[in-house]
Amino acid sequence: MSDGPDDGRRRRERESLADALALSRSSLGVTTPNPPVGAVVLDPAGAVAGRGATEAPGGRHAEVVALDAAGDRARGGTLLVTLEPCDHQGRTGPCSARALAAGVARVVYAVRDPNPLAAGGAETLRRAGVDVAQADDDEVAAAEQGPLRAWLHRQRSGRPYVTWKYAATLDGRVAAADGSSRWITGPESRHHVHGRRQEIDVVVVGSGTRAADDPSLTARSDDGAPTDRQPLRAVMGLTPVPPDAAVRGSDGRFRHLATRDPAEALAMLGDVQHVLVEGGPRLAGAFLAAGLVDEVEAYLAPIVLGDGRSAVQGAGVGTLTDAHGFEVRENATLGRDVYLRMTRRTA
Amino acid sequence: MSDGPDDGRRRRERESLADALALSRSSLGVTTPNPPVGAVVLDPAGAVAGRGATEAPGGRHAEVVALDAAGDRARGGTLLVTLEPCDHQGRTGPCSARALAAGVARVVYAVRDPNPLAAGGAETLRRAGVDVAQADDDEVAAAEQGPLRAWLHRQRSGRPYVTWKYAATLDGRVAAADGSSRWITGPESRHHVHGRRQEIDVVVVGSGTRAADDPSLTARSDDGAPTDRQPLRAVMGLTPVPPDAAVRGSDGRFRHLATRDPAEALAMLGDVQHVLVEGGPRLAGAFLAAGLVDEVEAYLAPIVLGDGRSAVQGAGVGTLTDAHGFEVRENATLGRDVYLRMTRRTA
Repeated sequence: MSDGPDDGRRRRERESLADALALSRSSLGVTTPNPPVGAVVLDPAGAVAGRGATEAPGGRHAEVVALDAAGDRARGGTLLVTLEPCDHQGRTGPCSARALAAGVARVVYAVRDPNPLAAGGAETLRRAGVDVAQADDDEVAAAEQGPLRAWLHRQRSGRPYVTWKYAATLDGRVAAADGSSRWITGPESRHHVHGRRQEIDVVVVGSGTRAADDPSLTARSDDGAPTDRQPLRAVMGLTPVPPDAAVRGSDGRFRHLATRDPAEALAMLGDVQHVLVEGGPRLAGAFLAAGLVDEVEAYLAPIVLGDGRSAVQGAGVGTLTDAHGFEVRENATLGRDVYLRMTRRTA
Repeated sequence: MSDGPDDGRRRRERESLADALALSRSSLGVTTPNPPVGAVVLDPAGAVAGRGATEAPGGRHAEVVALDAAGDRARGGTLLVTLEPCDHQGRTGPCSARALAAGVARVVYAVRDPNPLAAGGAETLRRAGVDVAQADDDEVAAAEQGPLRAWLHRQRSGRPYVTWKYAATLDGRVAAADGSSRWITGPESRHHVHGRRQEIDVVVVGSGTRAADDPSLTARSDDGAPTDRQPLRAVMGLTPVPPDAAVRGSDGRFRHLATRDPAEALAMLGDVQHVLVEGGPRLAGAFLAAGLVDEVEAYLAPIVLGDGRSAVQGAGVGTLTDAHGFEVRENATLGRDVYLRMTRRTA
């Protein structure tokens, strides 16, 4: 989209689309199998009239939430949305029809819908006389690499997006010589991890880590209480999970993935978008060796052990040029620790 | 120093002291056993009249360089210097006397000289009627934690400041399963390492790394040519260093430290300020176990190996609470890599 005569309008639209993207984060982990979308409606004068994010399956799409909030002020206004409005009659009716009924004059969307069943919303709106535009390349990239990345990956590849998360020392250890590992990182890092657990669908550990640490894998607030939104908890491996294992919990949100094959484990999970692999070293190695790690989240504690288990064991790499390569996307300080988010290197 | 009536003057002084600190970086690795100091002279109107950094031993101190450059413009002006001007008759005469002869009306210094032989310059100047002030706390801290840190450490502890530098993967490996390790990090990181080698006095590796990699340990520019300023190259360990080892070079700047004890190795090096320990894992472990690592420089490549040697082996830590702790001081991106500079955790 090139600069139009009305730069003020475009600036407001950019701000509102950024707002819609931020809103969509609140939908992460809630919407599966639907995409986590955000939407903002501006009235004809350019003032914000409605904001929304996709609700849980069966609930409203982001566009509908924002249009409901805007009411009559949407007429002649602009709808900004992080994903092309859907055009299909799902449980909620097409968003394209809803936008037409609301009388919006202009629609700006970031990511084109790759799902052939749902796509076509932009074209339907255009044919009906609405001014439809795709956002600028940088806005599209921000949406694609941000909250929509796991859903898009699922649409394009047919398998969930896999994030491998670990917490290690400067020398890459995840436990000391005596096996002690609580806590390598500080409270700020652990708070961050629990936030992330609320944004994904499934958290997976290997049966070795299950036996060694007996983790609950719940998302918890700083006072230790479970949060409202909980991921599915899964243990992968052929070893049975004992009836009294903490990971089983009492909410029915536990799965034993009785396989050693990461691809098979992902297939067992069905139509989920985002899987968080939390360890241990052999499970991480198996996912890496299978080419199934799309993203890495590293919580690095500025401490040195010099002995103990390394973060990854056995990733199918014999020589340096075969190393698994990633690209740093985020580098932040969390208390004393350093947090790095990386995605698979493509070039 | 509190805000005076002349805020403009104080702002110029802060800028000039920051400039002096930056200048002093050019003296790193050049001045040993003297401190790397920077100085700026402002004329009575507040304009920069002279700038300088300490020259090699036998050459001029920073104050003298700056005062020489300022000439008559120093009369009635201000001298800003990162370290209290010396008061002793060394090879170059006291800087306090030189400042008095130049007729400066005001002297602002950052770090008080901890060396009893050299200290007292501030008092001498004050008695002679010069307006003498120590810089603000933040300016003092910047100088103490910056270019003067190794020299100050030597003055206070009697041993050199030790930086352990390593380049590793996300899982803390410094070599792949087949021993390959060139190059784990990218060209930007390697460029940075060669810059650092020019700022320290001695670079040390263990005899294992010497035998495995046959490194030259020279500081080189990007085209591979040695730079003008070279550190002393040292190999520590009881194994003899072969006559054809690359580290011997042809410039006489090589030392074999025939000991397994890090403290003994440091003592063998005499009156140096800053030692860079470059590996391998066992040497790093020995220095860590001996409590002799003051600073860590980590070059982290966003790649995963899953096998191969870890960055540290044997650091005398059995359980997590005994880990060696550091504090992140710098976190920068170097090409694809992440660079962390850390200092020993004190609290």
